Amino acid sequence: MPGQTGPVTRLHDADERHFASDNYAGAHPEVLAALAAANGGHQTAYGADVYTARLQEVMAAHFGAGATTYPVFNGTAANVVSLQALLPRWGAVVCAESAHIQTDENGAPERVGGLKLLTVPTPDGKLTPELVARQAWGFGDEHRAQPGVVSITQSTELGTVYTPDEVRALADQAHGLGMRLHVDGARIANAAAALDLPLRAFTTDAGVDVVSLGGTKNGLLFGEAVVVLDPASVDGLPYLRKMDMQLASKMRFVSAQLVALYEGDLWLRSARHANAMAARLRAGLDALDGRVSVTRATEANGVFVVLPPAVSAELRRTWRFYDWHPDSGEVRLMCAFDTTGEDVDAFLAELARLLDA
Amino acid sequence: MPGQTGPVTRLHDADERHFASDNYAGAHPEVLAALAAANGGHQTAYGADVYTARLQEVMAAHFGAGATTYPVFNGTAANVVSLQALLPRWGAVVCAESAHIQTDENGAPERVGGLKLLTVPTPDGKLTPELVARQAWGFGDEHRAQPGVVSITQSTELGTVYTPDEVRALADQAHGLGMRLHVDGARIANAAAALDLPLRAFTTDAGVDVVSLGGTKNGLLFGEAVVVLDPASVDGLPYLRKMDMQLASKMRFVSAQLVALYEGDLWLRSARHANAMAARLRAGLDALDGRVSVTRATEANGVFVVLPPAVSAELRRTWRFYDWHPDSGEVRLMCAFDTTGEDVDAFLAELARLLDA
Amino acid sequence: MPGQTGPVTRLHDADERHFASDNYAGAHPEVLAALAAANGGHQTAYGADVYTARLQEVMAAHFGAGATTYPVFNGTAANVVSLQALLPRWGAVVCAESAHIQTDENGAPERVGGLKLLTVPTPDGKLTPELVARQAWGFGDEHRAQPGVVSITQSTELGTVYTPDEVRALADQAHGLGMRLHVDGARIANAAAALDLPLRAFTTDAGVDVVSLGGTKNGLLFGEAVVVLDPASVDGLPYLRKMDMQLASKMRFVSAQLVALYEGDLWLRSARHANAMAARLRAGLDALDGRVSVTRATEANGVFVVLPPAVSAELRRTWRFYDWHPDSGEVRLMCAFDTTGEDVDAFLAELARLLDA
Amino acid sequence: MPGQTGPVTRLHDADERHFASDNYAGAHPEVLAALAAANGGHQTAYGADVYTARLQEVMAAHFGAGATTYPVFNGTAANVVSLQALLPRWGAVVCAESAHIQTDENGAPERVGGLKLLTVPTPDGKLTPELVARQAWGFGDEHRAQPGVVSITQSTELGTVYTPDEVRALADQAHGLGMRLHVDGARIANAAAALDLPLRAFTTDAGVDVVSLGGTKNGLLFGEAVVVLDPASVDGLPYLRKMDMQLASKMRFVSAQLVALYEGDLWLRSARHANAMAARLRAGLDALDGRVSVTRATEANGVFVVLPPAVSAELRRTWRFYDWHPDSGEVRLMCAFDTTGEDVDAFLAELARLLDA
Repeated sequence: MPGQTGPVTRLHDADERHFASDNYAGAHPEVLAALAAANGGHQTAYGADVYTARLQEVMAAHFGAGATTYPVFNGTAANVVSLQALLPRWGAVVCAESAHIQTDENGAPERVGGLKLLTVPTPDGKLTPELVARQAWGFGDEHRAQPGVVSITQSTELGTVYTPDEVRALADQAHGLGMRLHVDGARIANAAAALDLPLRAFTTDAGVDVVSLGGTKNGLLFGEAVVVLDPASVDGLPYLRKMDMQLASKMRFVSAQLVALYEGDLWLRSARHANAMAARLRAGLDALDGRVSVTRATEANGVFVVLPPAVSAELRRTWRFYDWHPDSGEVRLMCAFDTTGEDVDAFLAELARLLDA
Repeated sequence: MPGQTGPVTRLHDADERHFASDNYAGAHPEVLAALAAANGGHQTAYGADVYTARLQEVMAAHFGAGATTYPVFNGTAANVVSLQALLPRWGAVVCAESAHIQTDENGAPERVGGLKLLTVPTPDGKLTPELVARQAWGFGDEHRAQPGVVSITQSTELGTVYTPDEVRALADQAHGLGMRLHVDGARIANAAAALDLPLRAFTTDAGVDVVSLGGTKNGLLFGEAVVVLDPASVDGLPYLRKMDMQLASKMRFVSAQLVALYEGDLWLRSARHANAMAARLRAGLDALDGRVSVTRATEANGVFVVLPPAVSAELRRTWRFYDWHPDSGEVRLMCAFDTTGEDVDAFLAELARLLDA
Repeated sequence: MPGQTGPVTRLHDADERHFASDNYAGAHPEVLAALAAANGGHQTAYGADVYTARLQEVMAAHFGAGATTYPVFNGTAANVVSLQALLPRWGAVVCAESAHIQTDENGAPERVGGLKLLTVPTPDGKLTPELVARQAWGFGDEHRAQPGVVSITQSTELGTVYTPDEVRALADQAHGLGMRLHVDGARIANAAAALDLPLRAFTTDAGVDVVSLGGTKNGLLFGEAVVVLDPASVDGLPYLRKMDMQLASKMRFVSAQLVALYEGDLWLRSARHANAMAARLRAGLDALDGRVSVTRATEANGVFVVLPPAVSAELRRTWRFYDWHPDSGEVRLMCAFDTTGEDVDAFLAELARLLDA
Repeated sequence: MPGQTGPVTRLHDADERHFASDNYAGAHPEVLAALAAANGGHQTAYGADVYTARLQEVMAAHFGAGATTYPVFNGTAANVVSLQALLPRWGAVVCAESAHIQTDENGAPERVGGLKLLTVPTPDGKLTPELVARQAWGFGDEHRAQPGVVSITQSTELGTVYTPDEVRALADQAHGLGMRLHVDGARIANAAAALDLPLRAFTTDAGVDVVSLGGTKNGLLFGEAVVVLDPASVDGLPYLRKMDMQLASKMRFVSAQLVALYEGDLWLRSARHANAMAARLRAGLDALDGRVSVTRATEANGVFVVLPPAVSAELRRTWRFYDWHPDSGEVRLMCAFDTTGEDVDAFLAELARLLDA
């Protein structure tokens, strides 16, 4: 029951959880504690504070000494700022048709960034050199937006994960064409957990140039970062971040959250937990003996399954989740850092009950 | 000395304060408490949460039942989203040459918003109908960016405050010309405190159409809002907020902070305190018997004074503050919600000592 | 041999012709004569001249009394100005993957217009209601660029032509969804000639809202126009044309060319001729007994055929034409108002010779 | 009386002339002849034609061997394409408050180019190093649009002309600051005529980086060019021209006009004549014994004079001219390549008659 905990009445039920999105979750308690630690006194605004300085060290430990980190407010912005920094005004981005930049950002890359997206359909949300080749052409032709970046999502919007070798193949292709490789890492921690590899194994060491590093979906209140791995790949990042309205004045509060997440193992603990909950959910669905059809590989924290419409409708009396393909009845079930085994089991039990009804 | 308070080491001295900017300050403890209250469990992302719903009520209490509130990340964005919502693609904004949108946003209004700014020099940061008239012309001429909005800052970048009558005169003029009146209210609470009037007295009741409502400079970690007072003045705000990369996924954490600030009197308490500290500072400067020259009226929380360069340089060994006009030696001293009387007195004492030296 | 004809030496061979594009051709002599007639004396700049006034009447005769015509410099601009006038800042355009706005304008719709294109693969360059439905969804969802216009090309980039019924079906669907129908009519005269119908039969009378009316590819030196059929569908066109850098100061020279083309039957004569030449070319290819493979319907002035690479290379010693799909060897052969029967026959003879070799 | 001269009826009086603008004039007969010479046969579209190649040679003869020339449709576009090519996304342009890019282009530099203009009031339309210094600061500050170009107009919007030394001083200052110097040369021929100097004397030889080279106002139907003097100062011009919708498909017709104007002395003959007519007009106004007040130096082809409102109104029954400052009664009288001595004398006679009345 909602209660009073301070100057703002708690207006919601803090025990209610869903499978809609990892951004339905709140913040990890360690992140809130980090905000309290960073509070008090005056710190220079706009990034010249000690927490942002510390963040540079934390990220260099993950991504290598050459990494430079630019905190921003959200993931859309991390992507647009990254892509603008990587591309001239006439540049284009090769990406999957299912990429978040293409489907979920109301044209921010085009409208704010002035970027052209060149999309390719993919079977599983993952680009391959063969798929990239369908759009990576026309260099020097003034009529064609010039392909300059390949952007991949790790883990993908479809719950799949690129291996280091797959990333390396894309980086090699891109670099061979004079292009750059960008990773939309809104769920990069889930990919690391799935691969059981350090972050740099499938970024810096695999040839990635710039990462949009996720925070919000993995337990921050808000906050992502542009992490530049190859400094030669970008230009003007501080200016772009400001003009794209992403320069936080009290930046210490973005940086302190990112430090809290990435300094120790909170990022990995949280992601492993979310992935484990997705695996548990997947196993439960598989155990339903074919009465529902799981549609995609469960490699990170998302599970995709086709449910009978009547069952979906009934389930939604208790649980929220996203329609993925309304026509087919496919839905997405997403697990977060705070999803519990009890949540998964209760959901599965209710689903089984409805399927039996 | 910095100490350990939880998962993130406190890296800074929480007792150090300056007169550089109100965004050098941290967050008010009541705001942090509100974040804790809003945490836990799952809430629908992107604004369909109970804290954002509550914020609507809080703002309607301040600005009238017709007000609609759209939380965003920062002040630059509140301005650009507001102005885009108020203007067609061919629109222009009449503003003071000293306006934040003109001087401090690296062209975000132009580059992200596609807006043309038509500026006017002002003696004190305040527009008047006579000054607006210098740019509010050329309606129907396709060669001229069409003036559609007058944008004022309250309190201004120069520490002055518009009276309700002054705002009303601008609103009447604007509406008479088919234009709209926007208020950049990054420091609107300081204006209310200075005027000793409720917010609506110099906004809704004075004919203002849209307010960029400040939060960060008055004790939030981050967070501002676009408050639409006349719904007929805007179009497409939800879309604009998203495409301008200002739609927080975990919006409850922006809204809960704004609720904490504006639900009770925290906004006013904090602003009154900051203004009082500026008045104390001003009085101290005046008492220096003409050895320094205060350059502008002290109506809100900023004080502007010309200091001898050598004195400024020495003062900066302890205190940070902004150069305003490097040529003249004018500096800006800004007080925040957490500035103490001791801070002010210590600053004045050191200044007096240096002037005597 | 090039010769002297006046102050500029003729530097080129005026008898050389190719099948590369209808914009390799020059201007029709009647168009040059119209420029001479419009020359001399002073006319009000920027469109308040008698030729632009006359153009309004000419276009109203074609498209109906409600039509308003805005001359612009080129086809890319006609499209971008049209689409901006039809859409709010958050709008999107549903179009074929093969549409010129998607493939050939270096992102001008996105970069200059701030528009998002939602593309659909098509078998023959033509959209259908079923294909449009794949992208015309998500209304009211702030995360999705809002579909507001369906844009079709008539005749298409693949040489096909929409019937009036096909256009009407798209218009009805669009209007039913609150969307608008735009026609990229860079080769609209070729469509009219193919259909043997007046322009309005498959535009105004079929529910089209705005047409990008072609001129350059049908014998002007340069010059296209935005023709607004439903005035309620657009906003701010004069401003958009100016800010998109398409307002000709000496507009009489654009308008006089368009008048010369569309006042009498020059537009139709020229288009019929080009189509007839394409038909002659097609017939000749068909008569090659399967030694080459014609890949698409020949409905307007373009012919698409797969040639053996060695044959293409040899043919190019004399004739220029475009590679369409380099992988398959498909090339495009385009006929213009000045293509002669002798050109076609000579091309076919040379092709036959090379195939026999 | 209008008459028939070909397929388009002459609809206007070819003997009527005004003092409104040099773009009220038509095209020089030699320009029309050049179009006829360039017509016929097929030429490669989009600039790979012999006339565009010849234009390169013509311009290299004027501006030096390093000059590269990019024809565009109009002057607004020449400016925006130039400035984008000279500046990164975060760049700003220092210009006079009276500059065409600031006052007459409906925000095209901001909206299409994403550029921020930093303006300075000037007494006579001319920038000086002291005036530039008021805006050329803040390098490296992410909050400030980064000054990267100084843009001057030659001859200026106020009829004045920069000397080579004045240009050199601005170029030296700009280069010393890491900035570039751009010339809006819509009336550059009038400046050359006024200075009696070759074009390169006050451009290439004075340190200018890029010129927007005028054509339309000096007797073309339409057509300007971006002339790059220092290739190291720009990037991506072909792409920018295309995405800014300024790539003419039948470019030979833009280039042939520019060749006709600049290959021989037509550009200089025409400009000298226009300037001489302005001088004649100025002399006649001066001879009116103080009954009217000439307000500015008459150095090129424009004359500015304050007329009694009643006199202006009466004069306009016969002659068109622009209000410059409606409040003061100042009007602008502009002479063109086809203004005759009789026009000037008739205007002066009518003015004298009205002043006497």
